[in-house]
Amino acid sequence: MRPNDSPAGGWIRRIQKLGLRPERDAKGLYFVEGARQVLRVLQAGHAVEKLVYCEVLAPSFLQKRVRLARRDGIDVVALSPEQFRSISTAERASGVAGIVRQHWTPIENADPCRGLCWVAVAKTRSAGNLGTMLRTAEAAGVAGLIVLEPETDPFDPRVVRASMGGIFGLQIVRATRTELLLWSLRHGCGITGTSPEGPTNYTDVEIDRALVVLFGEERKGLTQDELAMCSQTMRIPMVGSADSLNLGVAAGVVLFDLLRRRGGLDDAPSS
Amino acid sequence: MRPNDSPAGGWIRRIQKLGLRPERDAKGLYFVEGARQVLRVLQAGHAVEKLVYCEVLAPSFLQKRVRLARRDGIDVVALSPEQFRSISTAERASGVAGIVRQHWTPIENADPCRGLCWVAVAKTRSAGNLGTMLRTAEAAGVAGLIVLEPETDPFDPRVVRASMGGIFGLQIVRATRTELLLWSLRHGCGITGTSPEGPTNYTDVEIDRALVVLFGEERKGLTQDELAMCSQTMRIPMVGSADSLNLGVAAGVVLFDLLRRRGGLDDAPSS
Repeated sequence: MRPNDSPAGGWIRRIQKLGLRPERDAKGLYFVEGARQVLRVLQAGHAVEKLVYCEVLAPSFLQKRVRLARRDGIDVVALSPEQFRSISTAERASGVAGIVRQHWTPIENADPCRGLCWVAVAKTRSAGNLGTMLRTAEAAGVAGLIVLEPETDPFDPRVVRASMGGIFGLQIVRATRTELLLWSLRHGCGITGTSPEGPTNYTDVEIDRALVVLFGEERKGLTQDELAMCSQTMRIPMVGSADSLNLGVAAGVVLFDLLRRRGGLDDAPSS
Repeated sequence: MRPNDSPAGGWIRRIQKLGLRPERDAKGLYFVEGARQVLRVLQAGHAVEKLVYCEVLAPSFLQKRVRLARRDGIDVVALSPEQFRSISTAERASGVAGIVRQHWTPIENADPCRGLCWVAVAKTRSAGNLGTMLRTAEAAGVAGLIVLEPETDPFDPRVVRASMGGIFGLQIVRATRTELLLWSLRHGCGITGTSPEGPTNYTDVEIDRALVVLFGEERKGLTQDELAMCSQTMRIPMVGSADSLNLGVAAGVVLFDLLRRRGGLDDAPSS
């Protein structure tokens, strides 16, 4: 065992417990799995408390990165393939994972003018949908996510996985509806709701000031209370017989059009 | 039992077998489950060969519709709750399902000028992604889907379910790459590829003629051969550190922008 490697012992159980909400909340930690995701969370500079590594399973290009992390003082837990599989929730255990501190930004520190806009949600029916939305939001240059319901956990491993690393590039804020409303009023920032009944096409909403785009629950949409918070409400017109889009798709349509209207598409680096 | 009700007997096994590709191909049938989906497939006028109905489980507003369907000569199989649950693949068995004839359009009958554009795919990694793409495409007014790989089955129950009825509003074409290319050349129709390396922003591609939008496999993207078929290739610029969007989200961004540029958003009925 190398100098700052931890014994695997207790870590397997601790990691398994992070699959449960109460444990995540109590510890303020979450679990990130897979080579690409771990590379991205290290790159984003979040507090990685442990790296969990299985040399047999992990792709060889990771060795160097893990060595670097160890040198930077990150504790590495070395696991056998069997041990790693017992904590893995992926289809194929990739051999690398991390325990990462949840990055919360207090709403009073959130800058309404940061990035393209902010995105807010209350509840979502599907963790995968929320994750896809975060992936999309980060790709479009959104500042962060504002979570309005305690029930919704952006650090749920299913959300993290579907976000494909997108969550690492977003500020995450928890606020009540009242706190969000007061924050938006204080900063002269508009809350724009999305609803099939919205009077304005999403391509025509007013975008002169800082924006929070508020998405409702997948089936029920925005509640009366949420609609009342909005300074404008936009719809995505449907040409076919569909009555709605998938939540992640709706976010993509709306956020990338906002990016287009703000001239952000032309500035984006080409790959 | 009413006049044209079938005994449940053999139907349970036949429906279960439709979960398998060889059976779907051999019979040219597929399975549709759930009240909303069944209502939409009836409304779309596709050939429903059997309705499978469980009065105890089904929502009461369906009774009338099932009675109407029976009057129109559609055979109804009455199942007990236990029998219905044995064929259901949904989280909650909804009590209504249909066996529907697959609707294929031969490529020579496909009108390149129909609808907003055509969408083409070869393989997709996830049936759910393909289904979400169909839901999105139908909502945007796309004419239909062109499937380039025999492996891809748009009538897979997971695709049908994720399409949320979208598949019923799309023409479905199977063609080889050569057939698609010849068809597009014959009609002066452009094939527009999507790729992170595409030289043109999706908001700037040429849209003066009929279009086929070609999406590559989720991770590998378009193959060299597929890129060679394209008269233009477009990218969705990424502002954040993401290297791609989810397939359904990418389709939403691209197709709704095409709809915007063609003036289709303003014509869409408001709900």
